[in-house]
Amino acid sequence: MNKHGGYYGDNDIIDFSVNINPFGYPKGIESYIIKTLKEINKYPEIDGVTSKKYIANNLGVNHENIIIGNGAIELIYLYAKLFINKDIVVIQPTFNEYQRAFAPYNCRLINYITMEEEEFKINASKLMSFLKEIKPDLVILCNPNNPTGSFMPYEEMLEIFKYSKEENISWLIDESFIDFTDKESAIKYISEYPLFIVHSLTKFFGVPGLRIGYGIASKEVINKLHKYKEPWSLNSFALNLLPVIINDYDYIAKTKRWINKERKYLFDSLSAIKDISVFETKTNFFLCKYLLSSTIELQDKLLQKGIYIRTCEDFVGLGNNYFRIAIKSREDNDKLIEILKEI
Amino acid sequence: MNKHGGYYGDNDIIDFSVNINPFGYPKGIESYIIKTLKEINKYPEIDGVTSKKYIANNLGVNHENIIIGNGAIELIYLYAKLFINKDIVVIQPTFNEYQRAFAPYNCRLINYITMEEEEFKINASKLMSFLKEIKPDLVILCNPNNPTGSFMPYEEMLEIFKYSKEENISWLIDESFIDFTDKESAIKYISEYPLFIVHSLTKFFGVPGLRIGYGIASKEVINKLHKYKEPWSLNSFALNLLPVIINDYDYIAKTKRWINKERKYLFDSLSAIKDISVFETKTNFFLCKYLLSSTIELQDKLLQKGIYIRTCEDFVGLGNNYFRIAIKSREDNDKLIEILKEI
Repeated sequence: MNKHGGYYGDNDIIDFSVNINPFGYPKGIESYIIKTLKEINKYPEIDGVTSKKYIANNLGVNHENIIIGNGAIELIYLYAKLFINKDIVVIQPTFNEYQRAFAPYNCRLINYITMEEEEFKINASKLMSFLKEIKPDLVILCNPNNPTGSFMPYEEMLEIFKYSKEENISWLIDESFIDFTDKESAIKYISEYPLFIVHSLTKFFGVPGLRIGYGIASKEVINKLHKYKEPWSLNSFALNLLPVIINDYDYIAKTKRWINKERKYLFDSLSAIKDISVFETKTNFFLCKYLLSSTIELQDKLLQKGIYIRTCEDFVGLGNNYFRIAIKSREDNDKLIEILKEI
Repeated sequence: MNKHGGYYGDNDIIDFSVNINPFGYPKGIESYIIKTLKEINKYPEIDGVTSKKYIANNLGVNHENIIIGNGAIELIYLYAKLFINKDIVVIQPTFNEYQRAFAPYNCRLINYITMEEEEFKINASKLMSFLKEIKPDLVILCNPNNPTGSFMPYEEMLEIFKYSKEENISWLIDESFIDFTDKESAIKYISEYPLFIVHSLTKFFGVPGLRIGYGIASKEVINKLHKYKEPWSLNSFALNLLPVIINDYDYIAKTKRWINKERKYLFDSLSAIKDISVFETKTNFFLCKYLLSSTIELQDKLLQKGIYIRTCEDFVGLGNNYFRIAIKSREDNDKLIEILKEI
């Protein structure tokens, strides 16, 4: 079974392994694609400046602070090229692709592991001591974090950011899931501290097949990245749809209403199941712990009942009794709860 | 003006700078995209094995010899990651992206320059001596070559390939334009020699906006590349359309008929213009030399008449009086000839 999540078998399976918006994509996308179909016969705009200006306007930054990517993942792999032979701290447990992205560059990867006992939250003073000891070139933070769902408020990080600036420590902050939270992004700190922030449109807008993401940083960092970036990495549809979807305020509002309600509902429902502990989340998925046996067994049993979950044994710092589930529609969530109770 | 080619201004401009098939894309693409629109709500198949099997079948190799890319360009940038701190020979003048792709990796780039006096053809014995002297880790060959249109038959390269194997010299062979020729690919040599061959579907099938390419090599090289490859780099449409378009034999046959006829027609017409020399091409574009002044002036004059050409002053080994034109429809080609004669 693939380890990213995403069940490719029977279409009747409800897939809780993929953390994407259950509303499908914004309605305007289909008609827009049909209307602009002939664009595939042209190269996409080489610097994508039109879309960058829309994003910049939306975020209240300059378009020179923006880089767009074939999904956030392209930008993570691109940023890695700036860190050949460097020392990198990864705040774990987290998304495995960071390690993979930096692997080719002879980096030393050092894990800073957050603890279950502390609900996988970052303790700012512990992290500061760790950084003072290691003095890395880069720290990688997924915030909110996949798969734990925890969020570190940036106000608590300011001392660390200040120290990082003094010591020339960069930060890669992956905010791919921040749109599902009510938390403030680190964007407002890009001119002050050495941060590179990546955002994904895939999850919130339900378009993993289109591949759209963007990064935000100081003009210096963005220019350095553009120097190494492949041309035309976004296809025409992704590039042209970017302004359309980020301005779909109805879809955004509807999603925010759903997530606030459903997050609480699913948390309460999962908490009521005695063989499972569930960790608080700030975003659209829950990390859970199965108290009876390994989650591979649980995954098998659920699959027989038409439900697919993401087991977490491949995350650094998590054992073989953790699993992750996306928050889905009320109907699907109820089905999950019902079957978990049965099992 | 952007240096890739592709005029983004007035739509009435006939763009001779972009080397893509003038027939538009295969007809089935539009209906296929409309039919499969909802796929954007899913992650593309993570390893793309379904499409790989189609390509493999088409080429008569195993699907483990195939890697697919977000355009051939992704694969060139990916392959570069295998050559950190290495010595690389680039056969020039050629596509500028090779230099850019390898730039981040502290490579030593050494140009082997083919000469106008030899019609930009590779002289195998000269190249062999050069490689014996330099002993590089990699040689980059664009074949047929952009922008010169020349093609080096692989039968003439076998001694060099043999030597390369003995001396552990790899080859990146970009065959992005080979489908426009009647020449045989190097694919049949992948098990014998250390070659990585890239193909583009962008140009031949007229879909630069979709971003589709693939690479062919020994299983060992492909596995190494997959280790470093970003996941989900092709969008759903590109991934799913791959089998559809490579099997559109009518489109392929129609394109082959057009290129054979129009290549000869345009060559003869250009040769008849006294202030221009035109170099023989094996593919769908011509390198030309303007004998009167710099091509920047010529480009300006042509633009005033509704024609955009690619000037070549940024190619290594070419001066400011070369330009490149794509072979287009008879009507467009006639218009170009007529205006060139006027000027």
